[in-house]
Amino acid sequence: MKQVLPPGMTASQMDRALKAMARVVGDDWVLATDLDRDTYLDHFAVDEAAHAAAAAVAPLTAEQVAEVVKLANAHKLPLWPISRGKNFGYGGAAPRLKGSVVLDLSRMKKIEFDTENGTALLEPGVGFYDLYDYIQQNKLPYWVSTPGNSWGSVIGNALDRGVGYTTYGENTSKLCGMEVVLPTGELVRTGMGAMTGSPTWNLYKYGFGPAWDQMFVQSNYGVVTKAGMWLQPAPESMIGLDMELENVGDLEWSVDLISGFRRDGLLVQSPSIGSWLRGAAVLTSRKDWYDKPGALPDDVIAAIRKRFGIGWWSISLRFYGYEGVNEAAAAVVQAAFAKKSQQAFKVTRWKQGMPLEPTPFQGFPVTFPLANAAWHGGRGGHIGYSPVLPSNGRAAMDQFRRTYNRYQEYGMDYHGSFSMSERSITNVNQVLFNKDDAEMMKRVNGFFRALVSDATERRYGEYRTHIEYMDLVAGTYDFNNHALRRANEAVKDALDPNGILAPGKSGIWPKRYRNLRT
Amino acid sequence: MKQVLPPGMTASQMDRALKAMARVVGDDWVLATDLDRDTYLDHFAVDEAAHAAAAAVAPLTAEQVAEVVKLANAHKLPLWPISRGKNFGYGGAAPRLKGSVVLDLSRMKKIEFDTENGTALLEPGVGFYDLYDYIQQNKLPYWVSTPGNSWGSVIGNALDRGVGYTTYGENTSKLCGMEVVLPTGELVRTGMGAMTGSPTWNLYKYGFGPAWDQMFVQSNYGVVTKAGMWLQPAPESMIGLDMELENVGDLEWSVDLISGFRRDGLLVQSPSIGSWLRGAAVLTSRKDWYDKPGALPDDVIAAIRKRFGIGWWSISLRFYGYEGVNEAAAAVVQAAFAKKSQQAFKVTRWKQGMPLEPTPFQGFPVTFPLANAAWHGGRGGHIGYSPVLPSNGRAAMDQFRRTYNRYQEYGMDYHGSFSMSERSITNVNQVLFNKDDAEMMKRVNGFFRALVSDATERRYGEYRTHIEYMDLVAGTYDFNNHALRRANEAVKDALDPNGILAPGKSGIWPKRYRNLRT
Repeated sequence: MKQVLPPGMTASQMDRALKAMARVVGDDWVLATDLDRDTYLDHFAVDEAAHAAAAAVAPLTAEQVAEVVKLANAHKLPLWPISRGKNFGYGGAAPRLKGSVVLDLSRMKKIEFDTENGTALLEPGVGFYDLYDYIQQNKLPYWVSTPGNSWGSVIGNALDRGVGYTTYGENTSKLCGMEVVLPTGELVRTGMGAMTGSPTWNLYKYGFGPAWDQMFVQSNYGVVTKAGMWLQPAPESMIGLDMELENVGDLEWSVDLISGFRRDGLLVQSPSIGSWLRGAAVLTSRKDWYDKPGALPDDVIAAIRKRFGIGWWSISLRFYGYEGVNEAAAAVVQAAFAKKSQQAFKVTRWKQGMPLEPTPFQGFPVTFPLANAAWHGGRGGHIGYSPVLPSNGRAAMDQFRRTYNRYQEYGMDYHGSFSMSERSITNVNQVLFNKDDAEMMKRVNGFFRALVSDATERRYGEYRTHIEYMDLVAGTYDFNNHALRRANEAVKDALDPNGILAPGKSGIWPKRYRNLRT
Repeated sequence: MKQVLPPGMTASQMDRALKAMARVVGDDWVLATDLDRDTYLDHFAVDEAAHAAAAAVAPLTAEQVAEVVKLANAHKLPLWPISRGKNFGYGGAAPRLKGSVVLDLSRMKKIEFDTENGTALLEPGVGFYDLYDYIQQNKLPYWVSTPGNSWGSVIGNALDRGVGYTTYGENTSKLCGMEVVLPTGELVRTGMGAMTGSPTWNLYKYGFGPAWDQMFVQSNYGVVTKAGMWLQPAPESMIGLDMELENVGDLEWSVDLISGFRRDGLLVQSPSIGSWLRGAAVLTSRKDWYDKPGALPDDVIAAIRKRFGIGWWSISLRFYGYEGVNEAAAAVVQAAFAKKSQQAFKVTRWKQGMPLEPTPFQGFPVTFPLANAAWHGGRGGHIGYSPVLPSNGRAAMDQFRRTYNRYQEYGMDYHGSFSMSERSITNVNQVLFNKDDAEMMKRVNGFFRALVSDATERRYGEYRTHIEYMDLVAGTYDFNNHALRRANEAVKDALDPNGILAPGKSGIWPKRYRNLRT
């Protein structure tokens, strides 16, 4: 693999910049061999080379981050910060702008835990496993909100608006106070942390004046070197209600019921209603059932579902807290479902003192869902298509049908889920593929663009997207001739005059590279 | 009252600017007589003239706002936007910078209600009474989160991080999607609203990329012309637990208990523990009990409390939702309190079909708490001192004692409350005074500064402050030589190059007026 460079930079300029950075982080932590560059590729991407990094630099402290950022300004070198680089389906560790240097923060692993308040001040290298281990080792009465694939960074997940499965599942809303290196190298603390030595930095979210935390989410305005996260107090009890829904059409009434309970606050957790393949893809492989191209026929789907006892849709609801409260809440939900379906929920009850179920529902980190990438065999991969919908059954069903038809049209196997927030649904779809199937890979780009186009027609926007499609998706946010994007870029230019930090992230380009917008 | 002008502007320049604005809003809506100027004074302020406006301009539409803002740029005229101008204790309708023109948005009263989702897209002139009336007239199953004094703007309250008393009491966290006129006159929509015609604008808070909503809160980055607010679905039932605590020291254990229930999510509402004067000041006047200067002696306090049956502290907890869930939750809280106190809660139970109690606990707008301004007789007023504390009894008790001693030292009557958030306490103190008592008024400024100094020593910051003290409070947020303020001002200069929008708000000064920082 040959040297990769950002636009307008020569190999010797890159070399000088990396040498200067090595003096800050140490020679061992400038990673610029072919093998290093390969490590930071997005191996799930259709076109890995399109987002290749020139090198990586891995600082250990916020001070080193600030020094590296200052050098990036001096050398006009674009940096792409990653926490742990596990953002699979959305770009992994790879930069939006080819030839950027990855600012790899995975060595920064400090945890400062406030046991009384249930908050953790975390560096970006802290993974869900790290935080889980820390809590176990110190026997702390808190649970982690782990996502489906938990080897990523706790902060990184929240900064990309990833979700978990407990009552604290909307991870980005549990951020409270940050330490950030601005693109100029200046260190700021947000919220109450803007007061030196504040004991409420990670306790009160807003501070005095404008609140910045969400401006550093999905953005390129700064490198978050620490962030406060709120942790769920270990509950007295948990009740689980699980149901496998037989029919495609069951999505509509079940979404309507759950929407109501999310809105009125009875259900605090964000349940995700998943299609059969979400369950099946981690239990079996496609080739065991079918060896032809094109989307799986209905009879094969039926056979797989029967074999593993998976509904067309699976629902998992969880109630956390005091036992009496949970029992009363679960009874309300069961009664409402009983009016719509003969089928009863499978009920599980857990109390303090019983062994925990090793799933994200009880704060356990897991990685098995990533096995779905192997569905087609070969070198597996996937990208995510995730529009936000109004929270009602009709909208969910319409969107499902539209999307399902596109999967059929492009000969792909539907893999979708509906993650139910308080007043919206994030419709997360995985496009699973086999990178060794050249014919299949040729279809992916057109398929993805068709999906975005379908959503846009309904005026649904994606909440998150792969680096390859950031301009495409940002472009769909078009009110008043993309006024918000222009405001985003005005702020970008003010904070990052040399345009060195994550150019193109979320479709926000600094002046220096604005001509690169696709 | 003579003409007031902003720094560096002549009367004829002002006149030309106002004439140009009159062509946009109509002659009737440029308010520039002496009586008009008097109307926009902060009549609660120690020094009303220090923040006098030059005039007011009252547009009816976002388009008119944009035109006025563009003219302000052309004429280099500082504007001070207000929603309804009822921010009493923090400045009312008056501008931070003397001679600014008030941009009075109180004529903008459109309500777009989404009944299915329980959201309202509101213009800033919509008051709590307006929204309440709208809901009653249309028989909508939602409750309003009204603050103690409800004649203000719903949006304005949320934009200043005011609070209500229901489960939706943290009003700023119920904002979802805004329409904003930027300081250049450009119209943006935030979150999903950045997509033209988005059906999820007021349903999903973040959008794609950095989320701006909280950047327009307590800031001078734009004029919010519309904002989505989430409304609480009318619950099936409510249970109230009220207790009058006899001893000053009861604050500590009661805060500890409530902190735990706020953190573990059993109690979703933000209860406020108020000192005896909060109850008494709306029921009686000081002169009926005592006619000497200095803080009230203990025996007089005891007599007043006895007469009205008010504890030294009053606690009011409320549970909203399904009846069985509420009963179970209330039982947990009652059992915990029973271990600390012989005294039982006064329990009230409400269910759908019963008449509502006309208080903010059931979403009713009220204004009677403002009667506390009359405590001393004469022309009453007050300012608010509101540091944020860690959520535990020791911190609350220490802060109370420190503050109480200052009230004694300055001869004022203590009026404090502890508003319990999920992981912090907002300690709202009212400094009540009689503006006709010259001797008393001389003490206020020193008293307030001593209070801020006490908080700062503990590294507690105010969450909100009076316009007179915005620089003082912003200055306490000092991390890395006020790095966050410098970032705020970098954004300010990028968005508002002429420095026309609310100069000095929250201590953020545009370049043009930065020398005016006090």
